[in-house]
Amino acid sequence: MPRYSKQRLIDFSIQFFIKKGISEDNARYISELVVLTEAMGFTTHGLASLCEYDKELGLSIDPQAEPELVKDKGATALINGNRCMGHLAMKLAKEKALEKASMYGVAMVVVRNAGWIGALGVHLISLVKENLLAQIWAQSRGYPLCAPFGGIEAKLATNPVAIAFPTGMEPVLGDFATSAVSWGKLERMIEQGRKAEQAIFLDKFGNGTNDPSVVAEGGSILFLGGENFGYKGFTFALWCEAGAALAGVQNRNLKVPEQSFSLLVIDPDNFAGRDSYLAEMKAFILSLKESRPRPGKESVRLPGERSFQLLKAAEESGLQLDHKLLILLRDLSEKNKIPEFF
Amino acid sequence: MPRYSKQRLIDFSIQFFIKKGISEDNARYISELVVLTEAMGFTTHGLASLCEYDKELGLSIDPQAEPELVKDKGATALINGNRCMGHLAMKLAKEKALEKASMYGVAMVVVRNAGWIGALGVHLISLVKENLLAQIWAQSRGYPLCAPFGGIEAKLATNPVAIAFPTGMEPVLGDFATSAVSWGKLERMIEQGRKAEQAIFLDKFGNGTNDPSVVAEGGSILFLGGENFGYKGFTFALWCEAGAALAGVQNRNLKVPEQSFSLLVIDPDNFAGRDSYLAEMKAFILSLKESRPRPGKESVRLPGERSFQLLKAAEESGLQLDHKLLILLRDLSEKNKIPEFF
Repeated sequence: MPRYSKQRLIDFSIQFFIKKGISEDNARYISELVVLTEAMGFTTHGLASLCEYDKELGLSIDPQAEPELVKDKGATALINGNRCMGHLAMKLAKEKALEKASMYGVAMVVVRNAGWIGALGVHLISLVKENLLAQIWAQSRGYPLCAPFGGIEAKLATNPVAIAFPTGMEPVLGDFATSAVSWGKLERMIEQGRKAEQAIFLDKFGNGTNDPSVVAEGGSILFLGGENFGYKGFTFALWCEAGAALAGVQNRNLKVPEQSFSLLVIDPDNFAGRDSYLAEMKAFILSLKESRPRPGKESVRLPGERSFQLLKAAEESGLQLDHKLLILLRDLSEKNKIPEFF
Repeated sequence: MPRYSKQRLIDFSIQFFIKKGISEDNARYISELVVLTEAMGFTTHGLASLCEYDKELGLSIDPQAEPELVKDKGATALINGNRCMGHLAMKLAKEKALEKASMYGVAMVVVRNAGWIGALGVHLISLVKENLLAQIWAQSRGYPLCAPFGGIEAKLATNPVAIAFPTGMEPVLGDFATSAVSWGKLERMIEQGRKAEQAIFLDKFGNGTNDPSVVAEGGSILFLGGENFGYKGFTFALWCEAGAALAGVQNRNLKVPEQSFSLLVIDPDNFAGRDSYLAEMKAFILSLKESRPRPGKESVRLPGERSFQLLKAAEESGLQLDHKLLILLRDLSEKNKIPEFF
């Protein structure tokens, strides 16, 4: 597979977004995150997502919209995404949360009606580099894929969560759906003709199955924990919904794809102190890494560990793009009249 | 099975805790929560826990200790539990969080080195009744039961989380371990000779199994998500550890059983407003309840729904205590010279 430098891919992405009507500054900000997402191995949400933006920009996403601060009070803020690119809503949310966490020690910002945010975790990297702890809980409207626990009809999206905190070494960075698998992974399974190892889907009659193809036929994805423990994943998905409800979002029978989310930021200096926190967390993480690995595993792997390794490799020797992605990007270049990159 | 009124059980519990050296006011506060826990069906953490307190009070828990406010800054606070009864540490944490959430819209209080807190969810009921949203993430030191994902050696406890928010009807109240099952449920499975439906345990060689007996023989409990998706439960468990590290706790090779936790409280009035939040949440919850149930299920059940039904029944016609629990409580009465209750 050919390799491309991060910068070359960012430049391509900037040109793409400018062609779609996004300002150059915004296109640069978004493109750096899209390529970072690809470089960290979140490939379902990386460069392939440009094809989604190609369809949605001008439809469900307004390329010229800017997020708007609706309420700014105490340690909290409320932002209206105005169907802007989700990255821009997240940028404003982070700025407000950073400002407020440094004043009050903890901050919560909720955002409603943003365009698709992409992978959540990449947004938290700049915060953990400042030695802050952070969570994002996101809700999607218009993507019913998961049935409430015990039910058949899909009414919730695969509502993702990202959790990040500093460790004095590489940060811990978890980013995943509260359903058993994300929509992107479901699509990959179907493309590759794979079935799950367990029943993580429901068919339209409410029977558990390991066959992802049932989802497109009126079925759904089970929540994290599956048939027996899915009430746990369901609870986490409901917390994503609560964040959206705080922001004033309706999530009933609406077909408009939009995302809403809550961002929580915590400054360890307000508690036992940054140095104490980092010293303890580092010692604890090192003690976890010392655990003997299970048969077939190389070592204990922390959330985000592989992604930071992939990022380092991509920064040193470029990103490998597979054949299928290259074809998608070539088609995109042609359609949007972007000088040949691939 | 015989039935006992809530008040009668509370009176018994108060006498027990007074005999163990706890002040009458504290004994009353704790006993109301212990009986509430039993009444809501969290029976692994209810009256049976008195036998644990019988052993631990004077050892790992100091019956006369009071929690201490160490730091009070902005929207946050830090409390030292001083090995007090966990309920008292949680009470102080709730008071501070309530005060700060009403000032700043969001509050985070972390507590270190408390005695065992019992079931987390019951502590949140008074907060959701005030129309606040809340989370507790708790860490236990000295109970290594779960191996880091990919590893063999148990280094983390079954770190529980509780999530509660108002809905304009009964609140949503989730309360569960970030591992596949809690220690209490593991013990029940062993007593009843049951195996899990899936591999949710690891034996001492790191092989997945559905047999709970391996845990006592150097094995461990897998995280929520099991062999394939357990990195998700692992991430949540690590967030519990991050809360403890914020509070200044060490979690390395220490055998003293203590709990530490973070409490997050959010006031919807700081965002789109309480009325908007409640109206939207109620409509959404009702739409979830309308989903057709899966074969074999009566209806969609929300987190906490069954517990609130059990509580109502217990308030109307008393609590049913099974034979085994009655024997435990009779022994406890005799040992502590409490006038006959059972």
